[in-house]
Amino acid sequence: MSTRVSVADLQAFCVEALRRVGAKDSHARTVAEVLVMTDTWGTFTHGTKLLRDYCKRVKSGGLRSDTDPAVVASGPAWAIVDGGSCLGHVTSVFAMQQAIQRAKQTGIAYVGVRNSCHFGAAGYYAWLAAKEGLIGVSMANDIPSVAAAGSRRSVTGSNPLAYAVPTGQGDPILLDIASSTVAGGKVYAAYQRGEPIPGNWILDEEGHPSTDSSLYPAKAALTPLANHKGYGIALLIETLSGLLTGASITWQVGSWIWGDSTQPTGHGAAFIAIDIATMGPRDVFEQRITGLIQEIHAAPTADGVERVLVPHEREWNLRRQALVEGIQLPSDVVGKLAGLADDIDLHPAWLPRV
Amino acid sequence: MSTRVSVADLQAFCVEALRRVGAKDSHARTVAEVLVMTDTWGTFTHGTKLLRDYCKRVKSGGLRSDTDPAVVASGPAWAIVDGGSCLGHVTSVFAMQQAIQRAKQTGIAYVGVRNSCHFGAAGYYAWLAAKEGLIGVSMANDIPSVAAAGSRRSVTGSNPLAYAVPTGQGDPILLDIASSTVAGGKVYAAYQRGEPIPGNWILDEEGHPSTDSSLYPAKAALTPLANHKGYGIALLIETLSGLLTGASITWQVGSWIWGDSTQPTGHGAAFIAIDIATMGPRDVFEQRITGLIQEIHAAPTADGVERVLVPHEREWNLRRQALVEGIQLPSDVVGKLAGLADDIDLHPAWLPRV
Repeated sequence: MSTRVSVADLQAFCVEALRRVGAKDSHARTVAEVLVMTDTWGTFTHGTKLLRDYCKRVKSGGLRSDTDPAVVASGPAWAIVDGGSCLGHVTSVFAMQQAIQRAKQTGIAYVGVRNSCHFGAAGYYAWLAAKEGLIGVSMANDIPSVAAAGSRRSVTGSNPLAYAVPTGQGDPILLDIASSTVAGGKVYAAYQRGEPIPGNWILDEEGHPSTDSSLYPAKAALTPLANHKGYGIALLIETLSGLLTGASITWQVGSWIWGDSTQPTGHGAAFIAIDIATMGPRDVFEQRITGLIQEIHAAPTADGVERVLVPHEREWNLRRQALVEGIQLPSDVVGKLAGLADDIDLHPAWLPRV
Repeated sequence: MSTRVSVADLQAFCVEALRRVGAKDSHARTVAEVLVMTDTWGTFTHGTKLLRDYCKRVKSGGLRSDTDPAVVASGPAWAIVDGGSCLGHVTSVFAMQQAIQRAKQTGIAYVGVRNSCHFGAAGYYAWLAAKEGLIGVSMANDIPSVAAAGSRRSVTGSNPLAYAVPTGQGDPILLDIASSTVAGGKVYAAYQRGEPIPGNWILDEEGHPSTDSSLYPAKAALTPLANHKGYGIALLIETLSGLLTGASITWQVGSWIWGDSTQPTGHGAAFIAIDIATMGPRDVFEQRITGLIQEIHAAPTADGVERVLVPHEREWNLRRQALVEGIQLPSDVVGKLAGLADDIDLHPAWLPRV
């Protein structure tokens, strides 16, 4: 059952749910902010749908509620952050803030993260930089779920890559992509809806393409985006998120959703901020990018396409609508939230019992 | 007609050809080094095949031989380089060297470039960083030849992205990809060989997929890599290479191969270096990445695949072979070099007259 909820009500529910399982108030607020922002974009695979599993992990101790992320090594333009195995969103916000502060001094900064966990939508952290007028890049590793070019089984995580670019008065350009053909959450959502999937999303245990969404993740690997290209991008992300940071890599990473919820997962992540204003007049940059967007909007369209959009333009429009009308949560999200509501005995009026 | 040539002979020919059209000795040596290295990798679309058109442009003045790249703005972790419209390879080597020097002090550095030109294979410059023990990233913009997601015509360049990671004793991992499904050079090579192309490489003037390689570039656009993903990556590259550097963007960029060869093209580019040793013990990183490569090599393979490779593993093996046995230049490359030989009346014994 789909339902509509205001941003404020959904956020309050998330904060209270996290508090009830033991998360610190500040951590609960940060995670709620990230997840609800993601839902306002219509990116429901990476929003509050994930809260129940985060809460389970906090309650079981695999996500710690008595720690905070900290810089453990640094220079003017870089830092390594140890997340202390607290909620990955908290560590990621901290890390991107570190990158932003440093980049404002040095032009560009890299902050690598270890002892983190799943961080939701990578694009949120890239956007944090764009909100401050910087270009932001974010990425993370994960337990293997994606085949390499030429492999039969999973070799890399679906390692997401996101970037955001501020445009002055307009919405930031924001891209958030998996290095697999599609994120695993999309296969899982198709399975939950009982739907088959396109033939290029997964490989079965024999390494052959399959449309059977029930095979994933136990008996299938996601295909890498454009084969060797996505595989190569996943290895760059593994390098910057895992190898350079001291985080776990590939099969060392714990599954945040199916693994032992009493144990940390050891995820790594990386955040880069580039300060436009350090390198030249901000207004010149803003004029140029606004001109580029106008040029894109004026481009001749393919059949059936009204206007060529810049990345995340649709999502920013959905967000504006959600802020006024509330978020229309799809049934799979409602199901997960209702399950969480039962777990913690918290039943807001807007949330159907299922 | 295919022919075999030693690396030294091919390099000497390139240097002499560039000198004869007026390039400075140091510029000629740099360009020859880049192009011949690219040929040793077997990446013939981006190697000495391009020399004739570079020479034409040097002779006509669109590529200047009386200038050198220079840093025009900088901070400890960044610089903007003006290429002075000299050969793009020269400017790109200079810029990546600037990035490497700065990153050794600050951990990470960004160097943006304007007033450059086509720089050959992006991977060469990323490799320069890996050769020095740093992680390197390189990218460049170009005149539009690729559709956006939803467009009927070209919107972005085929903006390449490359990275390289050092591995200690082993070969660097190196990925060099276009943000289009394939680089335009591959379509053009198929046309020269009179071959049709796969149905997902280009869109015709109506925005429909086509297998007719003769349409490109005048009457076709390349498709973006994985549709919105490649389009989004192309815009990030345009931002870092063009918008942030003061370079020309999209239709302002001149076509280095079909445009007026007396005029500069105004290409932009960007180079990022990340110094591993600044952030932690180098031997720990090398052990971890060597372990990752061993894990990849041990991965179960798809049907017909002998071993899962890391990016550029095949190309490094081809290079080792080329250094011993010479480079087997394919006929399209020989044809271009023979044409150049006639242009400048330089006829080495190894080069067939065609």
